[in-house]
Amino acid sequence: MYRAKVYVTYKDSILDPQAEAVKTALHQLDFTELQQLTCGKYFELVLATSKEKAAVAVEQMCQKLLANVNMESYRYELEAC
Amino acid sequence: MYRAKVYVTYKDSILDPQAEAVKTALHQLDFTELQQLTCGKYFELVLATSKEKAAVAVEQMCQKLLANVNMESYRYELEAC
Repeated sequence: MYRAKVYVTYKDSILDPQAEAVKTALHQLDFTELQQLTCGKYFELVLATSKEKAAVAVEQMCQKLLANVNMESYRYELEAC
Repeated sequence: MYRAKVYVTYKDSILDPQAEAVKTALHQLDFTELQQLTCGKYFELVLATSKEKAAVAVEQMCQKLLANVNMESYRYELEAC
């Protein structure tokens, strides 16, 4: 069994109004040390397969569903569980 | 400068319809090895302060805005950048 942690964020070239809104709100709450903020999606998947097959499956899942590859980039980590 | 990576997920006791929908969709795409799936929010923050102050600030940001502490749990990692 493997656990995949998938992080999906907007590509740098894409304007992220949600992140701007969260950043503004945090500044209004006096968190002035905040310089930069990125929002994204986080998925944790448990896969009943080998590490190699898990990597292939997660890659395909990201390409097909978890990320909009036109606007988003993704990365993932695999760990035995 | 410190980079904080914040992961916000629903508490185990909370039903997550989004995760159920994504899991069903992935099963329909023949990813039968998928056993379990959790969805959440992911934030990356860059903070211009010391490590100790960054930790305190991130904790407060999560409590005040980034997470709904009634339904969600959060964890974060700090790294120099």
